[in-house]
Amino acid sequence: MTELSISLDVLTATLRDILVAHGCSDTVANALATNCASATRDGSKSHGLFRMAGYVSTLRSGWVDGRAEPVVEDVAPGFVRVDARNGFTLPAHAAARSLLEEKARQNGIAILAIRDSHHLGALYLDIEPYAQAGFVALSVINSMAVVVHPGGNKPVYGTNPVAFAAPRGEGAPLVFDMATSTMAHGDVRVAAREGRSVPEGVGVDAKGSPTTDPSAILEGGALLAFGGHKGTAIALMVELLCAALVGGQFSFEVDWSAHPGAQTPRTGQTVILIDPTRASTPLAPFADRVELLVQSILGSGDVRLPGEKRLACRRAAEAGIVVDAAQWQSILDLKDRTSA
Amino acid sequence: MTELSISLDVLTATLRDILVAHGCSDTVANALATNCASATRDGSKSHGLFRMAGYVSTLRSGWVDGRAEPVVEDVAPGFVRVDARNGFTLPAHAAARSLLEEKARQNGIAILAIRDSHHLGALYLDIEPYAQAGFVALSVINSMAVVVHPGGNKPVYGTNPVAFAAPRGEGAPLVFDMATSTMAHGDVRVAAREGRSVPEGVGVDAKGSPTTDPSAILEGGALLAFGGHKGTAIALMVELLCAALVGGQFSFEVDWSAHPGAQTPRTGQTVILIDPTRASTPLAPFADRVELLVQSILGSGDVRLPGEKRLACRRAAEAGIVVDAAQWQSILDLKDRTSA
Repeated sequence: MTELSISLDVLTATLRDILVAHGCSDTVANALATNCASATRDGSKSHGLFRMAGYVSTLRSGWVDGRAEPVVEDVAPGFVRVDARNGFTLPAHAAARSLLEEKARQNGIAILAIRDSHHLGALYLDIEPYAQAGFVALSVINSMAVVVHPGGNKPVYGTNPVAFAAPRGEGAPLVFDMATSTMAHGDVRVAAREGRSVPEGVGVDAKGSPTTDPSAILEGGALLAFGGHKGTAIALMVELLCAALVGGQFSFEVDWSAHPGAQTPRTGQTVILIDPTRASTPLAPFADRVELLVQSILGSGDVRLPGEKRLACRRAAEAGIVVDAAQWQSILDLKDRTSA
Repeated sequence: MTELSISLDVLTATLRDILVAHGCSDTVANALATNCASATRDGSKSHGLFRMAGYVSTLRSGWVDGRAEPVVEDVAPGFVRVDARNGFTLPAHAAARSLLEEKARQNGIAILAIRDSHHLGALYLDIEPYAQAGFVALSVINSMAVVVHPGGNKPVYGTNPVAFAAPRGEGAPLVFDMATSTMAHGDVRVAAREGRSVPEGVGVDAKGSPTTDPSAILEGGALLAFGGHKGTAIALMVELLCAALVGGQFSFEVDWSAHPGAQTPRTGQTVILIDPTRASTPLAPFADRVELLVQSILGSGDVRLPGEKRLACRRAAEAGIVVDAAQWQSILDLKDRTSA
């Protein structure tokens, strides 16, 4: 396997050009390319370069508007809404970011509700900057129905990830980002692509029977939520906080049948921001308390912190992001697919 | 087994008298008795009458102040803090409830951070009234360190429950309440009391080895979080949202060694309230959208909704709450234990 080393800037610019070639505005292309390149830098197989084909395929299908201009609505002192107008979530979020921060600072807490939006990227990258600015951030997204309720044979929930970020006293923020499905849909697709089976309990086939074949899960089957009834309750909460609260579609309402090639769910996203300087700190400032908990966890045995692997990849990538040459060529080829 | 049928009013009044006899103020006794009686009515073994001995034992130990008067601090348009002053969380929460609702209505979202507080009751009862009033509510509590991080041999997290409530178009609100440990600590204690083993994967013994013996878990051992690394990440988030954010103690900081008999963790609680009327409703009002999701789940197969069993118990209890006569006598005996 031949490998190349590419800088983050070159990677981002290359991806941006491809997205522009497929009809994205500069603003939209920049938001998507930055997320995808950053996820690649951080070692994410499922949300890095692998997603580019999905972006291009979706743009070509006419399912998403790559030039949509989001409308930001300031509806209450602590409540921001964005109508993404069938565009991507990333530029819609970017358009509301400074207003949300201002509201969280003034009120102690604020919420952002994005509707009619598409998200195919890594969720932790949406909220990590808030923690770098001193906020506690929580974000959830629903997607398309690929997860069954325990005992059900018809998918109801999306993979519905939950991401959380908090500033630490030392170093990078504490960040986690997890699909509420047993496995991220992207990881199931990677397993299918690489011809690997998935662990038992990850999903069911089209008949609702347990399977370890990722293709059977992807083609008519479904995933299960992590942790049985408890994880399912979290997936349910994500549907309510995204679709019902933002005015977007539930995962099971997503219908892209008229747009073959579409891969981005058209749903919603919610972000909650808390300003910990409003909290009581009789013991120590917030970030120092987070650091104390982190150190206690690290001292409790042979353990691994959420995000540890990601930060290690990020550090290693400072000298250049290592990319498989064949994959890189397939990415470059995406640009030319416009003429097809 | 002889059983008695008791009305909710008689049950509540009886429990209140016992708590007053053990030094609680009327306000505090009323809040605790209402929670405990309601949990009993709803069929909760772990948070119903079984908890009364824990309340009494803790009050007798001097660990908690049964007459504490909480101090409510209005720190920002969307942020309420309460110093429970080493009292119970329930009366501290009650003291801030109307202010929190007012803030959520005005700002769209508001947060309540309670510190230096004790919680031994059922968490869903804290937030169900918010959903009945039309709010979306999320609450988390940390407790005492009884859960290990995967790979660890030293407990770091509490059972750290998460409760969520949202109004439905039809009937009672949708409510869930789950320990982020594989099993609620109360359920492990019930299993130990009844001589039953617990399922594999629930916990580890004092050496960190897997065990199905509830006593081994309770005596020097520890629980695991549900769902592996993902459930552990939720438990970690609860610690940060409770202890670090409210200015309370982390679960691993709780030290009641000077108070033999103490059973209530002295930590914190966080409540986030969202007013869904501020959300966008191009599709339908919020509660109708919740109802649509609920009906879709119910139609997806042989499934069970969160809280279903609880609501069935509640309906059955309208004719009287059925209580085991021997357990009831042991509850009545608690009142006299003051002279011991």
